[in-house]
Amino acid sequence: MSVQVAVVMGSKSDWETMQHACQMLEELEIAYEKKVVSAHRTPDLMFEFAEQASARGIKVIIAGAGGAAHLPGMIAAKTLLPVIGVPVKSAALNGLDSLLSIVQMPGGIPVATVAIGKAGATNAGLLAAQILGAFDPEVMQRVEARRERIKQEVLESSDTLGVEQ
Amino acid sequence: MSVQVAVVMGSKSDWETMQHACQMLEELEIAYEKKVVSAHRTPDLMFEFAEQASARGIKVIIAGAGGAAHLPGMIAAKTLLPVIGVPVKSAALNGLDSLLSIVQMPGGIPVATVAIGKAGATNAGLLAAQILGAFDPEVMQRVEARRERIKQEVLESSDTLGVEQ
Amino acid sequence: MSVQVAVVMGSKSDWETMQHACQMLEELEIAYEKKVVSAHRTPDLMFEFAEQASARGIKVIIAGAGGAAHLPGMIAAKTLLPVIGVPVKSAALNGLDSLLSIVQMPGGIPVATVAIGKAGATNAGLLAAQILGAFDPEVMQRVEARRERIKQEVLESSDTLGVEQ
Amino acid sequence: MSVQVAVVMGSKSDWETMQHACQMLEELEIAYEKKVVSAHRTPDLMFEFAEQASARGIKVIIAGAGGAAHLPGMIAAKTLLPVIGVPVKSAALNGLDSLLSIVQMPGGIPVATVAIGKAGATNAGLLAAQILGAFDPEVMQRVEARRERIKQEVLESSDTLGVEQ
Amino acid sequence: MSVQVAVVMGSKSDWETMQHACQMLEELEIAYEKKVVSAHRTPDLMFEFAEQASARGIKVIIAGAGGAAHLPGMIAAKTLLPVIGVPVKSAALNGLDSLLSIVQMPGGIPVATVAIGKAGATNAGLLAAQILGAFDPEVMQRVEARRERIKQEVLESSDTLGVEQ
Amino acid sequence: MSVQVAVVMGSKSDWETMQHACQMLEELEIAYEKKVVSAHRTPDLMFEFAEQASARGIKVIIAGAGGAAHLPGMIAAKTLLPVIGVPVKSAALNGLDSLLSIVQMPGGIPVATVAIGKAGATNAGLLAAQILGAFDPEVMQRVEARRERIKQEVLESSDTLGVEQ
Amino acid sequence: MSVQVAVVMGSKSDWETMQHACQMLEELEIAYEKKVVSAHRTPDLMFEFAEQASARGIKVIIAGAGGAAHLPGMIAAKTLLPVIGVPVKSAALNGLDSLLSIVQMPGGIPVATVAIGKAGATNAGLLAAQILGAFDPEVMQRVEARRERIKQEVLESSDTLGVEQ
Amino acid sequence: MSVQVAVVMGSKSDWETMQHACQMLEELEIAYEKKVVSAHRTPDLMFEFAEQASARGIKVIIAGAGGAAHLPGMIAAKTLLPVIGVPVKSAALNGLDSLLSIVQMPGGIPVATVAIGKAGATNAGLLAAQILGAFDPEVMQRVEARRERIKQEVLESSDTLGVEQ
Repeated sequence: MSVQVAVVMGSKSDWETMQHACQMLEELEIAYEKKVVSAHRTPDLMFEFAEQASARGIKVIIAGAGGAAHLPGMIAAKTLLPVIGVPVKSAALNGLDSLLSIVQMPGGIPVATVAIGKAGATNAGLLAAQILGAFDPEVMQRVEARRERIKQEVLESSDTLGVEQ
Repeated sequence: MSVQVAVVMGSKSDWETMQHACQMLEELEIAYEKKVVSAHRTPDLMFEFAEQASARGIKVIIAGAGGAAHLPGMIAAKTLLPVIGVPVKSAALNGLDSLLSIVQMPGGIPVATVAIGKAGATNAGLLAAQILGAFDPEVMQRVEARRERIKQEVLESSDTLGVEQ
Repeated sequence: MSVQVAVVMGSKSDWETMQHACQMLEELEIAYEKKVVSAHRTPDLMFEFAEQASARGIKVIIAGAGGAAHLPGMIAAKTLLPVIGVPVKSAALNGLDSLLSIVQMPGGIPVATVAIGKAGATNAGLLAAQILGAFDPEVMQRVEARRERIKQEVLESSDTLGVEQ
Repeated sequence: MSVQVAVVMGSKSDWETMQHACQMLEELEIAYEKKVVSAHRTPDLMFEFAEQASARGIKVIIAGAGGAAHLPGMIAAKTLLPVIGVPVKSAALNGLDSLLSIVQMPGGIPVATVAIGKAGATNAGLLAAQILGAFDPEVMQRVEARRERIKQEVLESSDTLGVEQ
Repeated sequence: MSVQVAVVMGSKSDWETMQHACQMLEELEIAYEKKVVSAHRTPDLMFEFAEQASARGIKVIIAGAGGAAHLPGMIAAKTLLPVIGVPVKSAALNGLDSLLSIVQMPGGIPVATVAIGKAGATNAGLLAAQILGAFDPEVMQRVEARRERIKQEVLESSDTLGVEQ
Repeated sequence: MSVQVAVVMGSKSDWETMQHACQMLEELEIAYEKKVVSAHRTPDLMFEFAEQASARGIKVIIAGAGGAAHLPGMIAAKTLLPVIGVPVKSAALNGLDSLLSIVQMPGGIPVATVAIGKAGATNAGLLAAQILGAFDPEVMQRVEARRERIKQEVLESSDTLGVEQ
Repeated sequence: MSVQVAVVMGSKSDWETMQHACQMLEELEIAYEKKVVSAHRTPDLMFEFAEQASARGIKVIIAGAGGAAHLPGMIAAKTLLPVIGVPVKSAALNGLDSLLSIVQMPGGIPVATVAIGKAGATNAGLLAAQILGAFDPEVMQRVEARRERIKQEVLESSDTLGVEQ
Repeated sequence: MSVQVAVVMGSKSDWETMQHACQMLEELEIAYEKKVVSAHRTPDLMFEFAEQASARGIKVIIAGAGGAAHLPGMIAAKTLLPVIGVPVKSAALNGLDSLLSIVQMPGGIPVATVAIGKAGATNAGLLAAQILGAFDPEVMQRVEARRERIKQEVLESSDTLGVEQ
């Protein structure tokens, strides 16, 4: 199966967060690739990657970065594919800088931004799947099954409130 | 041509912002519908709308709201389609409350969040087009032509810097 | 004694915070029920719960959630009972996102918001009791006795300042 | 009909905001009184007011203040009635200071906090009515009728989107 | 020697911070008293304390509190003595709420606010001494000697930079 | 009567704010001087001023500045007199930068910080008077008379609520 | 005289701010060029510009942008010249997003960030001159003369305080 | 080789952060000196240092400080050399106060501000090198070689993603 989603991150230290996007894609059986691509340290590689992604059959790009997080927006500037941005929690400002650097894009170049940190990375994988699923009923079914599963987990968790606490 | 994108907003006062999403969809010749659907004042209508959107052929939902902005996240909870959230600028906190209420979704239910206000609404329309375009070469071509056009505008604007100022 | 207060929370992980609301209700001898009800993962259950609460004799609902915390506001949209919202401390933004998502409700659907975290949960239980107490002298007496007690604790604590430190 | 709700504010300049609480109470036919009571400039009057409110038959107190807004919390410290706090928008920090000064109460003395500014004042009136309504079916009916009315307004507003714009 | 400075705090848990004010006063040989006085839990005691402080010969009051920190401002409302407010670091918002609740006083009732936490408490003691010192040359000399001492410490610390690291 | 309070500001544009400190000092009949002294543009003058203030008989210094507001803290570093800092509202960040630059002083050099903008300037004048008043009964009487006056104003304002609105 | 400083900005709308950098360079007689170069809309042009700047004799680059401001950081990633970043005030968040997007660069690629808005743009021109001046005594003399001039302005402004107000 | 860069910090406790600036200067073989110079505790020494730096052959000054961080701006007020400011992470506000106190300088006295904490200190050393390198090809070559090296590290790190995790 050809790769449909690319997961890129600005630094290897972002992997702790971004692995949750990869786990979600694996859970939903979506073929993906993962790479470290730094906007600041490997800018040419970043441009090359972004320019070629569509022709390589990729449909959605997930990009995670922290601090002055330029990776998602710069990839979005070099591709017409939808780009999902994950704000990685930063050392000093807890990811507020990452969030604003990713979400506040000017009119003309959107980045689909998700929550700061692990929940955001998880949701980036899921959002990629939902985008694919809007055009692929099999993916949608797997997303639906997952949602049903987490609903059951919530229902069951309610019964144990305060029991083992 | 059947409707592919739905643009909903929490209040009629959000139209000043959300019309920029509609203008972008018109510019890119994407069929859309627009509605006021309030998470707080018409919750049942919101659920009904979200539940039926996919079956009605809609591929992407754009939802704008301000303050404690629950509309995008609640629609996302009731559909498997990708939902784009637009934080509308709020009276007291300039849309920071809107942004956090939309983007900080828990793992399991993503909302693709764009910038606060007009730039975000414009980009919501464009992001919807890019999602469609990833699976429809004709849409992608129109997105590409638009991007080429704004590039030319930037190049030309440079020559007039300080001239008419 | 029939249940007068319902304590709901968006996730089992909120129990660490929300148990303080329950402890307060127990201390003040107010009958309550507790449940996990997720706005995003069990939206239909949430609506059902909110719609039926009043008919079941409940007088006040306490709802706790974190991040893009939609639970208190959405329950408030589906009931006419007073809803108390507890912002649970979130991973990245320390509950500032939770607070703004809960308190910044639009005109028409109020949520009675308390402080972030444990102090807020404690006060949610107490506020529920004060609402009941405004119409039930016995409850008010218990609230009054508790307040007298904490006043004494403050007075006594003053004498030990720096002693055992 | 005896007064059931007291609306107090820290300064006459808060009236522009707090009148929206009074309008809501009038719309819902709830007897109320209104006063300027300053925590900082008339502290003794504030304590006297708070101490006597319950005996005078008042069931809910609404208190609005801006900046280092101490009025709601200090009234709450001197009464067992439920106190609703309205953060008035401040000159420099847009009411973020007012909000935090009101909502972040320590465990033991709750304030039911609503949104910053006009929407919050409106909702303070409504929340007071919902508290009364939990124990008075006639009030509840008026609250319900109002909610039905605003729902209709939303539905109708949708049809005019972009028409007169 | 009669007591010239009173150090009060809203809760015994503030002692960890406020002891630094007391240590500074001891270092500068200024007679002081310390007490827990809670704005919210012992409001009458607080008023009584503030009203009598001047007649008891106290010249400066230092008040520390966290969260919705009303103690410094309410004491200031009940005395004409200068009141120094220390924002104690809070659980969720790191003392930003404490700072704004103390410093943003309305025109008419000032609080002399210092930094959040330990540095602020230390400086509260020092500021009290400087206020006394402006009218008492002996105190001023001790403040001056201390300042000379910390200057020497800075000069010496420079030589060891990176040595023992 | 010799000058007891000096009011300095970092720029002439701060006068709009700082005049309120001067008005208060005039109202309370306290002799003062006013000057523009810039930490950044006239650093030597600033040091000279701060060094000589005490010997010239000044008892309290009020310093106002905006943005990266270094004036109050640097004057405090060069005098042992109590320094009151007024955060002037800044162009971009509404004075939050001014506030943090003034209040967050390290242990050893306190600045008595008041509110952002006009209210803070008014209170700076008043706080200076209260410091003087702690050692001068005549000043204290004037402060007391003023406080009684504003209390009466609050009481009267209450009667006109909503009348002329 | 060959161009030594390049002033670039992300959009023509940034000119209102960035012209102050140009005015300062003109005042100090430093040859410069100005251009609109958008990180998002003309990414290839931006890379080309940054790559060639050093070879063209440019010594310092000033880059201004607002919102998710990627221009300064991306230029810094493609040149070894010092890059000065000017955060342009943004529509919703007053330039806080611009500031964090520019200043919070990861280790390895620095951007010399100045204040938000006009003051920052003015200082960007001045900082460029100071960098040149560290290696060119003539430039340094002009910077020194300017600084002397503004010092005189401060001294004179002090005499007119409150006169014409 | 004569000293070209001075690294100063407000307190010995800043060394943990500022050593990263020194390590970078060592790595790039740039002669530097390091000192503790406190704006608040050794103001005269600070002025002396700043006034003499240029005559001693220094070309760039790096200054780090936390909280109400006045050191970089005050040094900039007393020298015409470019000053790089490093916001040290503070105890309560994570360095947001340090950042704003350093970057928000008024027009006329620029400080080249870098990121909060370790990344900023590293970049301060690098920025100093880039400033020197703009006029010294040998330094520029070392900066270039370093940049090539970190690019290779990024490329290699990509291959190990998730391998050893």
